[in-house]
Amino acid sequence: MATPEDRLAELGIALPAPMAAVANYVPFVITGNQLFVSGQVSVMDGALMKGRLGEDLELSAGQHAARACGINLIAQCKAALGELSRVKRVVKLGGFVNCAPDFTDIPQVINGCSDLMVEVFGETGRHARSAVSCPVLPLGVAVEIDGVFEIGA
Amino acid sequence: MATPEDRLAELGIALPAPMAAVANYVPFVITGNQLFVSGQVSVMDGALMKGRLGEDLELSAGQHAARACGINLIAQCKAALGELSRVKRVVKLGGFVNCAPDFTDIPQVINGCSDLMVEVFGETGRHARSAVSCPVLPLGVAVEIDGVFEIGA
Amino acid sequence: MATPEDRLAELGIALPAPMAAVANYVPFVITGNQLFVSGQVSVMDGALMKGRLGEDLELSAGQHAARACGINLIAQCKAALGELSRVKRVVKLGGFVNCAPDFTDIPQVINGCSDLMVEVFGETGRHARSAVSCPVLPLGVAVEIDGVFEIGA
Repeated sequence: MATPEDRLAELGIALPAPMAAVANYVPFVITGNQLFVSGQVSVMDGALMKGRLGEDLELSAGQHAARACGINLIAQCKAALGELSRVKRVVKLGGFVNCAPDFTDIPQVINGCSDLMVEVFGETGRHARSAVSCPVLPLGVAVEIDGVFEIGA
Repeated sequence: MATPEDRLAELGIALPAPMAAVANYVPFVITGNQLFVSGQVSVMDGALMKGRLGEDLELSAGQHAARACGINLIAQCKAALGELSRVKRVVKLGGFVNCAPDFTDIPQVINGCSDLMVEVFGETGRHARSAVSCPVLPLGVAVEIDGVFEIGA
Repeated sequence: MATPEDRLAELGIALPAPMAAVANYVPFVITGNQLFVSGQVSVMDGALMKGRLGEDLELSAGQHAARACGINLIAQCKAALGELSRVKRVVKLGGFVNCAPDFTDIPQVINGCSDLMVEVFGETGRHARSAVSCPVLPLGVAVEIDGVFEIGA
């Protein structure tokens, strides 16, 4: 059976070095059988994906940004767990989109991350989520997403 | 002793068919004895409750919208658990209100949902929560609320 | 070994009486070995720390506001647990900053709370977190932060 790592390879996704926390917080915490991953911003290949939906970013660019957050979330899971097959369930994603006040396609943006989770983890990747907006995000990025994962031994 | 379903009936609330997820996420995930419910937007009887507090919505309308989110959260609990008495505690609600930048009565809006939880679940319904604002919400709705619930067998 | 209470004393921090919930929600809920604390707003010595980053508040004032949220979170932990040494890990902080749309130093604001957690709890205080913005917060405060804590017997 294909592992999540196999599926990443099929998708042509090389996980980046997980971003280190730059302050007194950490990228992830494991408590019991839950892995909490810090909010991951839209950065790909070291480049910030900046902008505001409904202002200077198209929906498709927002979806790419959300997908980048997803790749960064998975990179943190890999760093935390060693093998991604230890993810027993993607439990909850919290999605925040940098939006102009008249942009309402927020769920469609976050789908860029949700779709990736199912592409990589299969049924295990189906998750609960919230999808909301912010007037701005750290460093001007387009999307930030945090996550809770159920893990096995 | 009255069940939560009995209290809903006394309140004249008929749970709607729970909203299905329309993408690669799901309305709820159970992990261990925790039920995570996706952010529920303010929709009642199939009609979106849209608008922005401090702009085109009065506080009372916002409270009704938050109550609608609460009804939708309970509908997801019912779908997940069969019997609402399996809810041992409403643990945490995350409330997001579509607000103009000068509207500060955000907690009062979310009370529309908090009050419902106690009306339906009694002491079990008393929960931790956050109550914050967003410049816009999915589909232009007034309120979105997600939840974590402790469940029993 | 110094307890968190000892470190608070060294830091010259007297925990305030924890803020009571003023509605049908509560300041905290314990479920299993997790303590969920409601979003704590920036209030210190009974005075609201109001304002919007990038508009009428400097970064340093925002950091002080985030630190106040942290003190209030710790006050709730103390109320919930009796002894702060029962906190086995600060698991996750959810930080919300009242921001103008061009203010991007959101993580630096929330560091005011993150730093406090490590000052008080040591390594146990290193946590996952999200750091996002809102167009406004309850009562016009500058910062709101909620938390999840792992607790022991």
